[in-house]
Amino acid sequence: MRRHLITGGAGFIGANLVRALRARGDAVLVVDDLSRGRREHLAESTGPEVQLIVADASETDSLRRAVGDARIDEVWHLAANSDIPAGVADLRVDLRHTFLTTAATLEVMRDVGAKVLHFASTSAVYGDFGERVASEDSGPLEPISNYGAMKLASEAQIRAACESFVERANVFRFANVVGVPATHGVILDFVRKLKASPGVLEVLGDGTQKKPYLHVGELVEAMLFVADRAQGRFNVVNIGPEDDGITVREIAEIVVGAFAPEAEIRYGREPRGWVGDVPRFRYALERLRALGWRSEASSHSAIQLAVREIGQQEGWTTCRP
Amino acid sequence: MRRHLITGGAGFIGANLVRALRARGDAVLVVDDLSRGRREHLAESTGPEVQLIVADASETDSLRRAVGDARIDEVWHLAANSDIPAGVADLRVDLRHTFLTTAATLEVMRDVGAKVLHFASTSAVYGDFGERVASEDSGPLEPISNYGAMKLASEAQIRAACESFVERANVFRFANVVGVPATHGVILDFVRKLKASPGVLEVLGDGTQKKPYLHVGELVEAMLFVADRAQGRFNVVNIGPEDDGITVREIAEIVVGAFAPEAEIRYGREPRGWVGDVPRFRYALERLRALGWRSEASSHSAIQLAVREIGQQEGWTTCRP
Repeated sequence: MRRHLITGGAGFIGANLVRALRARGDAVLVVDDLSRGRREHLAESTGPEVQLIVADASETDSLRRAVGDARIDEVWHLAANSDIPAGVADLRVDLRHTFLTTAATLEVMRDVGAKVLHFASTSAVYGDFGERVASEDSGPLEPISNYGAMKLASEAQIRAACESFVERANVFRFANVVGVPATHGVILDFVRKLKASPGVLEVLGDGTQKKPYLHVGELVEAMLFVADRAQGRFNVVNIGPEDDGITVREIAEIVVGAFAPEAEIRYGREPRGWVGDVPRFRYALERLRALGWRSEASSHSAIQLAVREIGQQEGWTTCRP
Repeated sequence: MRRHLITGGAGFIGANLVRALRARGDAVLVVDDLSRGRREHLAESTGPEVQLIVADASETDSLRRAVGDARIDEVWHLAANSDIPAGVADLRVDLRHTFLTTAATLEVMRDVGAKVLHFASTSAVYGDFGERVASEDSGPLEPISNYGAMKLASEAQIRAACESFVERANVFRFANVVGVPATHGVILDFVRKLKASPGVLEVLGDGTQKKPYLHVGELVEAMLFVADRAQGRFNVVNIGPEDDGITVREIAEIVVGAFAPEAEIRYGREPRGWVGDVPRFRYALERLRALGWRSEASSHSAIQLAVREIGQQEGWTTCRP
C-alpha cells in the first residue's frame, strides 16, 4: 500500500485528491492548518488509512513532528495561500503560506527520506503573457502577483533539490480550478454576493478577463495520470482545458441565470479585477497531450457544473436545472 | 546628494560599490551582518557620508531599525550567502541569507517608501544551459544549486513588487566576479591551499569547467552604467565579459605560475567541482551592449589581475610581475 503525505490536504483540491487516492486503496496522511481547509472536507474519506494532523506546514519542526515515523512514498505539496489579493496587500502571506511551506516540505522530505514530490503550481508563474501562448519552457517568467512569485520561488527550490535528495518531482501548473468544496474563487464570491443582495451583482473589473477553467475532478485525474507516467526527474506540466477560456462576464451571467435571473450585473472599469490579476491567459498543452491526457469538459461546462455544486454547497437551489 | 542603502555592503562587491558611489559624491548606508563582510573593507570609504550598521538583513525588524528615518533614494541588495556548496549541504543557508534578505529588503522598502532597487543576481538562475546561450528572456530557468534557486526566487518576488510599490528594479545577472577584497571563490581557495602546502594544488573537478569571469572593477562600472540608463520598470541584464570564459585548469596554472611554479596540480575526475556547479556557461550580452556597455578585460586578464591582487591580500608576492 502506497503512503502519501498531502500538505493542505483538507482544502479544496486536497480533499478531492484524498478521495481519489483512497479510491485507489492508498493510505494518506494529511497535514493542514485548517485555515481554509476543513475537517469536514475529509468526511467522505474516513477510515484508518486517512489521517489528518492539524499543523502549520510552513514550520519545519511542526511538519516534521506531524510526519513522525510514518513511511512516506509520495508527497503532494498543496498547502498555499489561495487569496491572491490578500498576498498583494501583505507580503508575508504568500512568503509564509505559499513559499515557506515548500521550504519546510523539502527539508522534511530530506529528513525522512521521501523521494517523490508532486507540486501544485499555477499559471500565475507566467505573469501577463498577453496573446502569447505559455508553454512550460517559455521565458521570461514574470509573475505579477506575490502568489505567482512565491509559486515560482517554490518551483526553483524544488528544481535545485532534484540535484540531490529529490528523485522525482512533478510540477503542475494549474489553470483556474473550480468545484467543491469551494473555499474561495470567483464563483463562490458571486454566489455569496448574490445571496446577500439578490437584486444586484457587483463584478470586480470590466468582465472582459478571459481565463481557462478546469473542474477539480478532471484536475485530480490529470495529476494522477501525469504522476503515473512522467519519466523525467523534474517535470513541469501545464494542466488546463482544451479551450481558450471563458470571460468573467459569462461566469457572472451563468451564476445570475442559475440563482437570480432578475439581478442586475454591474461591472467595474478596469480590465483587471485586482493588482496581480492577469486579464487573459493562453496555455500550451502539448506536453500534457503527449503524455496522453486531454480534458473532456470545456471551461464553460466546468463552470456550469461548479456553479450548481457551489450553489448546493451554499444552500441554494438553482432556478434552472 | 543621493542616499543609497546597500545590504551586504561590507562584502566583496559591496565594498567596491561603496567606493564608486562615494567617488560620485553620494551618501551610503551599509547594512551588513559581518559574517563575510568586514568593517576594514570600508576603510577607504570613511567619512560622515558612509555609515555601517551591523544587522542581519534577513530579519525585517532588524533591517527596519537599521534604516531608521534615513531617506533612501536607491537600494542595492547584495546581501546573500556566497558559499554555494554550503547552501547545498544545508537548505536553510540560502533560504535565509539569499532569499529572506530579499523578502525583508522589499518589506522595508515598502515601509520607508524607497522606490528604486538594484539586485545582484547571478548566472546560476539559468542552471545548466549546456552549449545554449543564456539570454535574459530564456526559459526554462532550472537552477541546480539552492543558491541559484533562491536568487531566482528573489527575482520573482522583486518582479511582483514592481506591480505595486517598487517603481524601478534592475536585476543584474552576474558572471563570476573576481578581485579584492576576496572573501571566497576559486582564486582565494587556490592561493590559500598553495600557501598551506606549496608543493601541490588539489583541484575540485577535472579542470575542464569553463566560465566567464569579470573583474569587480568592471562589474561595478557596468552596474552603475545600467542603473543610470535602463528605462523599464523591471530590467534584467546579464553582466559578463565578451569572451566565453576560462577553464579551471587555466586558472590553476595562472595561480601556480604566479606563486609556486614548481607545484604539481592534481585534478579530480568529475567535470563538476561540486553539486550545483555548472561546468560550462555562455552568456548573451546583447542587452548590456545595447545599453552601451562592454567589458574591456577578457576573462583571462580579469583572472590575472585578480590573482595578483588576491596574492597581495594574502601576503604573497608573485614570482613573476
